[in-house]
Amino acid sequence: MYKKLTFIALMLSALIAQAQTTEKLVPYVKPIIGTQRMGHTFPGATVPFGMVQLSPETDTVGYVKDGKYDPDVYKYCAGYQYDDKSIVGFSHTHFSGTGHSDLGDFLVMPTVGKLMLHPGTADKPRSGYRSAFSHQNEVSEANYYKVKLDDYNITAEMTTTTRVGFHQYTFPKSEQAHIILDLMAGIYNYEDKNVWTYLHVVNDTLVTGYRQTNGWAKNRTLYFALRFSKPFIAYGNMNGSKREVYRGFWGKFNQSKNFPEVAGRQIRAYFDFATAEGEKIKMKMALSPVSMDGALRNMQAEAPGWDFEKVKSDGQAAWERELHKITIQSKSIGDKQNFYTSMYHTMINPTVYMDVDGQYRGLDQNNHRADGFTNYTTFSLWDTHRALHPLFNIIEPERNADMVKSMLAHFEQSPEHMLPIWSNSANENWCMSGYHSVSVIADALVKGNVSNIDANKALDACVTTAHQRFFMGLGYYMDMGYIPEDKDGNAVSSTLEYAYDDWCIAQLAKKLGRTEVYNEFIKRSQNFNNLFDAKSGFMRPKLGDGTFRTKFDPLSTINQGFIEGNAWNYTLYVPHDPARLMQLKGGDKKFIVYLDSLFTMNLPDKYFAETEDITRDGIIGNYVHGNEPSHHVAYLYNWTSQPWKTQERVRMILPLMYKPTPDGLGGNDDTGQMSAWYIFSSLGFYPVAPGSDQYQLGSPAVDGAVIQLSGGKTFTIETVNQSAKNVYVQKVVLNGKVLDRTYLTHADIMGGGKMVFWMGSGHK
Amino acid sequence: MYKKLTFIALMLSALIAQAQTTEKLVPYVKPIIGTQRMGHTFPGATVPFGMVQLSPETDTVGYVKDGKYDPDVYKYCAGYQYDDKSIVGFSHTHFSGTGHSDLGDFLVMPTVGKLMLHPGTADKPRSGYRSAFSHQNEVSEANYYKVKLDDYNITAEMTTTTRVGFHQYTFPKSEQAHIILDLMAGIYNYEDKNVWTYLHVVNDTLVTGYRQTNGWAKNRTLYFALRFSKPFIAYGNMNGSKREVYRGFWGKFNQSKNFPEVAGRQIRAYFDFATAEGEKIKMKMALSPVSMDGALRNMQAEAPGWDFEKVKSDGQAAWERELHKITIQSKSIGDKQNFYTSMYHTMINPTVYMDVDGQYRGLDQNNHRADGFTNYTTFSLWDTHRALHPLFNIIEPERNADMVKSMLAHFEQSPEHMLPIWSNSANENWCMSGYHSVSVIADALVKGNVSNIDANKALDACVTTAHQRFFMGLGYYMDMGYIPEDKDGNAVSSTLEYAYDDWCIAQLAKKLGRTEVYNEFIKRSQNFNNLFDAKSGFMRPKLGDGTFRTKFDPLSTINQGFIEGNAWNYTLYVPHDPARLMQLKGGDKKFIVYLDSLFTMNLPDKYFAETEDITRDGIIGNYVHGNEPSHHVAYLYNWTSQPWKTQERVRMILPLMYKPTPDGLGGNDDTGQMSAWYIFSSLGFYPVAPGSDQYQLGSPAVDGAVIQLSGGKTFTIETVNQSAKNVYVQKVVLNGKVLDRTYLTHADIMGGGKMVFWMGSGHK
Repeated sequence: MYKKLTFIALMLSALIAQAQTTEKLVPYVKPIIGTQRMGHTFPGATVPFGMVQLSPETDTVGYVKDGKYDPDVYKYCAGYQYDDKSIVGFSHTHFSGTGHSDLGDFLVMPTVGKLMLHPGTADKPRSGYRSAFSHQNEVSEANYYKVKLDDYNITAEMTTTTRVGFHQYTFPKSEQAHIILDLMAGIYNYEDKNVWTYLHVVNDTLVTGYRQTNGWAKNRTLYFALRFSKPFIAYGNMNGSKREVYRGFWGKFNQSKNFPEVAGRQIRAYFDFATAEGEKIKMKMALSPVSMDGALRNMQAEAPGWDFEKVKSDGQAAWERELHKITIQSKSIGDKQNFYTSMYHTMINPTVYMDVDGQYRGLDQNNHRADGFTNYTTFSLWDTHRALHPLFNIIEPERNADMVKSMLAHFEQSPEHMLPIWSNSANENWCMSGYHSVSVIADALVKGNVSNIDANKALDACVTTAHQRFFMGLGYYMDMGYIPEDKDGNAVSSTLEYAYDDWCIAQLAKKLGRTEVYNEFIKRSQNFNNLFDAKSGFMRPKLGDGTFRTKFDPLSTINQGFIEGNAWNYTLYVPHDPARLMQLKGGDKKFIVYLDSLFTMNLPDKYFAETEDITRDGIIGNYVHGNEPSHHVAYLYNWTSQPWKTQERVRMILPLMYKPTPDGLGGNDDTGQMSAWYIFSSLGFYPVAPGSDQYQLGSPAVDGAVIQLSGGKTFTIETVNQSAKNVYVQKVVLNGKVLDRTYLTHADIMGGGKMVFWMGSGHK
Repeated sequence: MYKKLTFIALMLSALIAQAQTTEKLVPYVKPIIGTQRMGHTFPGATVPFGMVQLSPETDTVGYVKDGKYDPDVYKYCAGYQYDDKSIVGFSHTHFSGTGHSDLGDFLVMPTVGKLMLHPGTADKPRSGYRSAFSHQNEVSEANYYKVKLDDYNITAEMTTTTRVGFHQYTFPKSEQAHIILDLMAGIYNYEDKNVWTYLHVVNDTLVTGYRQTNGWAKNRTLYFALRFSKPFIAYGNMNGSKREVYRGFWGKFNQSKNFPEVAGRQIRAYFDFATAEGEKIKMKMALSPVSMDGALRNMQAEAPGWDFEKVKSDGQAAWERELHKITIQSKSIGDKQNFYTSMYHTMINPTVYMDVDGQYRGLDQNNHRADGFTNYTTFSLWDTHRALHPLFNIIEPERNADMVKSMLAHFEQSPEHMLPIWSNSANENWCMSGYHSVSVIADALVKGNVSNIDANKALDACVTTAHQRFFMGLGYYMDMGYIPEDKDGNAVSSTLEYAYDDWCIAQLAKKLGRTEVYNEFIKRSQNFNNLFDAKSGFMRPKLGDGTFRTKFDPLSTINQGFIEGNAWNYTLYVPHDPARLMQLKGGDKKFIVYLDSLFTMNLPDKYFAETEDITRDGIIGNYVHGNEPSHHVAYLYNWTSQPWKTQERVRMILPLMYKPTPDGLGGNDDTGQMSAWYIFSSLGFYPVAPGSDQYQLGSPAVDGAVIQLSGGKTFTIETVNQSAKNVYVQKVVLNGKVLDRTYLTHADIMGGGKMVFWMGSGHK
C-alpha cells in the first residue's frame, strides 16, 4: 500500500511539474464568473492590478428625481449585469466585486446611423445609443473582451495595458459612423456626482480631458488622453450643463461643433467617421491621476503603436506569469476555472495609481512622486486584510511591500493623519469599521516582508491611527475599553475589530522591541472581553452606563451594534485569541456546539432579508460566507478537540459558494477577498489571524499545487486520496516529517519544500 | 527773452533732476481714485503686476433667482463701491477697471462675538458677518490698505508681495474672535459659478485649499496656502452643498467641526481664537495657479516671516521704483495724484501668473514651466493694445517682452490655435472684437523690443490667428473683404479692427522680409474701405448681398454693427491710415468739420442711455472717451491743416475725464488703458497706430518730465510757458533742433535726449 501510494505521489509530482512549466492558464480564467446577481465582478479587460479596467456597462442608472437612493444602483456596482440585454458602452474604470461603488469613467460607444447622444433605456430598444447584444456573440477573457453590438452590426474588442484601454471597433460600411465619448456617464451616478468635465480636441486624432467627481471618492479627478487610429471628419458635443450664465460672454460662435474645447458638468461628445465594410477603427485611451500630459506620457510609454493583438497578448502573458504563481492539479475543469478565476479576481484590486514617471495625486490633493515604489489605491481593507494581503505576502511579496508603502504614503498625506480605511483614488471613503491597514502592515513586517520599509515609522503610523479619537467611537474605546452602543452605531463590531487590530500593532511592536507600545496595545487587544455577555453567550451591545443593552436580537443585523453581521457571527470575531474566546464560550464542548449550530441552524427569512451584499445561497445555516466577518470561522474548530470539522466545513463551503458560472459567487467578491479565501482554502490552509505567522490547516480541494516563491523556490502541496468524499486529513507530512500541529508557519512555506496531505473519507 | 526762458528751462531741469532722485512718489498714489461709480478700480493692496490684489469687498451680490442678470453685479466688478457703508470681507484677486468681471477669491473676514457664517445684507446692519466702516477710518495706499471694522472694533490692515496677501488684524479682547474664510464668496458670483472648493487644515496654523470656478474664465482653479501667526483653538465649516447623496457613506462622524478636510460647492470656514485687547493676529495667504504645494513654496519664497511693516515697505519700494520710471513736474498736486495714480493703475494688470518656480497652468489646462520669462495673464487686449502696451514698450520693455512671450505661450497652448483675445487665468474669455495681440506683438517687435523672441514664430502665430475662420465673422472677412452685418452682429467694428490688426501683421512681415505675408495682410488692411458709405459719410453695416443696410442710425450703438461705439465714433477707426480716411471723408476741410462736430454736437439723452461702461461725464459731445475706440481720435487733427485742434482737444479731455477723487474716472479704467492714455497725453504724445514707430504730438499738461529708459538713459520733456491756458504748442525742440513734424519716433525717445515744448495761448 505504501509503495503504491508513493508511486501515485511521484506520478502527481511529475504531472505538477509539467503543469507548472507548460500549461496555459489564461483559458481557465472566466471573468464572467460573478457577473450575475451579487458577485459584482466585471467581464471586461484588464492587466494585473491595472489602472484601467475596460469593461461594458449594461446600465449606468444613476438617481431618481428627488435625490433618493435608486436600488438599481447597487446592482450596477461593476456596471454589468449578466441578465441584461443591452450594452450602453465601454468605460475604463471599475471596482471588482464591491458592495458600494464609484468610477465608470469615460464611457465610449461606437454607433452608426443617426447620431443619438442619450443612452436610452433598457426597456425601449433603440431609444438611445445603447445596443442589444447576446452572450453568444460575447468573448470574455483575461485582458480581452469582445462583443457584437447587434443594433449597429459593430464588433467591439478591447484589451489593455496598465494605464491604457485599447479599443478595436469593426464597423459596417457607413457614411455615419460615430464614436461617442460620454463624460456624463458613470457608476453610482447620482445627480451632481459629476463636478466638472473637460475635453480638448488637440487634433483630428488626439483628444485630452478629465472628469472630476464627487462620488464615493469625495474629491476625485481622472485625466485622459485619447488617440484614434483614423482621423475623424467632424466632432462635436452636447453640453447639458444648466444655467451657464456666462455663456453670452464667452464668444459669439458655435462651440458645440468642431470647436476644440468644452468644459461643463454634463457633456457628451462624438466623433464622426465614414467607414468601409469591415473597417477597423482603433482607439487608445490612457489614464492618469495627475494630468492630461501624464496620460499622454503613459500612452506613449505603454502603447505607442496600433498592434491590438500585441497589446492583448502582452497582457495575457502578464496574466500567465501571475497565474503561474500557483499552479494546481485537479481533475475538475470547473475547479480549475474557479481557482484561476479566483487568482484573476485577487489581482485586479488594489490598482496602480501613478503615472509611468511615478507621479500620483496624494490624499492631500497635491501631486507627489513615488520614490522607489509603485503607488496603489483601491484598498478595501475591511475585506482584504483577512486573506488577500496575506496571499500577496506569499505570492506577491514585492507588490505587497509596495502596497504597504502606498499605505504609509497615504498616512503621510492624510489630512486626518490616518492609515487608509478604504482608499479610493486619493480619497478616503471611510468605509466599514476598524483600522485594518495595521493588520496588513503588521502581517507583512512580522512575516519579514520588509523590503525598504522603515518598520519603526510604520509602527508610528499604526499607533497614530489607533489614537484618533474622532474616528468611529475610538475615543470611547480608548477611555472605556469598549464603545458604548448608545454613542456609536457599530459599537460591538468596531470594538471587536479594534481589539484585533490592536493585537496586530502589539505584534509589530514586539518584533521591534518597542515595549511601551506593545504593552499598551496588547492590553487593548483584550477589549473584546468587555463586550462578552456571559449570560446570553454573545458579544452584545453595552451602553455608556456599563450595562448590556436589554433590547437584543442575536440573529438580527440591524441596529444591534454590528455592521454586516449579527451577534451569532460576530461573537466569533476574536481571530487573535480563539483560545480565550473558547474559554468565554464555556470551553471546548460548548464552543463546538455553538459552531455547529451556526452552520446548521435555520435562519428565518426575515433575517436573511436584512443581510447585505449576498444572495440567499451566500448563507449556510446562519453562517454568512458572503460577508467577511466570518471568513475565519470554519477554521476555529482547529482550537477545539474536533479539528476535522474545520475540514468538513471548508469542503462544504467551497463548492457551495464558488461555481464556475456567471452566478457562481454567493456574494460580492469584495475586491478579491472572497477569491483569496477560495485560494487558501482549496490549497488546505488559511490565515486566521494575519499578523501572526500561522496558517490554520483545513482540507485541500486540489489534487496538488505548486506555489512559486521569490528566489526561485517553490512550495509544493501534494494530496493523496483527495476527493469530494475524502475531505478528512489523515496526516500531513511536511518535508518528509509528519506535522504534529494544526497549522503551518510562514517560514514553512517561504523556505520552500513540500507538504503532503494524506486524505480519507473518515475523520481522525 | 530768450535768455530768461533758457534760465527757466535750466531751473526746471534742476528741479526735475531733484524730483527724479529724491521725491517719494507713493504718497501721490490714490488707489481710491475710480472706486466710485464706473471706474471699477479697487482700493486694496497690491505690488506691481502682482498675482494678489488684496482688497475689501463692499458687496459680492451674485445673482437673482431665475438666473437673470443682476444689474448690481456690474457695479461690483472690482468688489468695492465707495458709497457703500459696509465691508463684507477682504478677498485676494481683483481686476482693475474692467467692465465685466470675475475673481474675488478667498474672502477673509475677522469678527468677534457670535459666529455668523452668512455675509448678511447691506440694508440690514449686523445681519451677517459684514461690518460697517467709514472712510474716516480708511487708509488706501499703494500696497497698503487699512480700515476699522466698526461692528467688531477690529482694525484690519493688509499688504502684499507678488503672490502673497498679508493681513494684520488688531482685535479687541474677546473669547470669541473668529477669522472667517468664505470660499463661496466671489465677484460676479452667479449661481453655480463655484464648481468646487477644497480646504485642508494641515495643522493649527496652516490651511491649504483651492477654488474652482466656472465664471468669466470658464474653467479656472486657484490654489492657496494660508498661515496664521497664532494657532487657532478650534475651527469648522458650513457646507452648503446640496444633495450630497454619498454623505452617508463618508464616515459617521462630525465633519463640520475640527475635521481637517472639506470639499464641496458651497463652503464657509471659520477659525476661532481668544484675543487680548489690541492683540494682532497676522495671516498670510499665498496663491498659486498650479497647486497648494506651489502656493506654500510661493509663501516660503516671498514672505517667510511675520514682519508686516517690512512686507509693506518692500512693496512700496517696488512701487517707488516703478513710479520713478516717469517723474513729472507739475504745480498741481491734483495733477501729480492723477499722473502717479495713472502710473499705478497701468501696473496692476496684466498680472503675474506663475509660481516662483516658473510653473503655471496653460490654456490647455496642463501645467507648464515658463522657460526664461515671467508668465502673465489678464490681457484685456481690445483695451490695452492701444496705449498700455506701447507705454510698456518705453518704460517696461522687459516686462512687455515677457508679456509677448506669455501671449505666444498662450498661442502654443490654445485649443483654438489663437493668440489671446482676453486672457484670464489659463482661459480665453473671447471678450470684445479683433485679434489685437498682433498689435502688441508687432508694436514690440517693430520697435525693436525683441528680447529672445523668435520673431518669425511670432509672425506665424499672428498669421494663424488671423486665419481662424470660425472667429467672429473672420471667414466672411477673408472671403468678402468685410463681414456682412446679416451674418455677424459686430460686423462693422470687427471689419475695421481686423483691418488695423492686419496692417500690424503686415508691418511685422515687412520688417522680417516675409513678402508673401506682407502682401496678403497689407491688402487686408485696406478692407475698411469696403464699409465706407460715401453717401452717408459713415462706416456702415453692409449686407451679404453687397448693399448697405437701409436701417441705419449713426448715433446709435445698438444693433448697428458696432460694439461699444456708434458709427460717428467708429467711422474714425482707421488708426493705420488716417490719410486715406480723410480722403474718404472728403478731404481736409470736411474731415475737420466732422471731427469738430463729434466733439461739439449735442448727443440726445436716449443715445447716452445706450452707451456702456461710462458715466454721463465720460462723453464730450458725441466723443466717447470712456470707451476705447475713440482714444486716438483727438490726435487725428494732426493729419489735417489744423493740428492745434489736437492740442486743444487733448487739454480739454484731460481735466474732464481724470480727477483725483473717488469719482474721478469717467468710465472703466479698463486694466490701465484709460490711465495709459492719460500718461501719454499729459506728456504730450500718443501712439495712434501701435505697430508704427510714431507717436503723434499733442499738448503736454505737465511742466516737465523725465522718462527712465533701459541702459540708464533718460528722455526729458521740458515745457516752456505751459499752463491751463497755454495749451498750444509754439514749437518743439528735440535735442536742440526744432522738430518739423507732428510726431516723435520711438528711436527719438529710446535714444535718450530732451524734447522741449514751447507753449502759448494762441495756436500757430
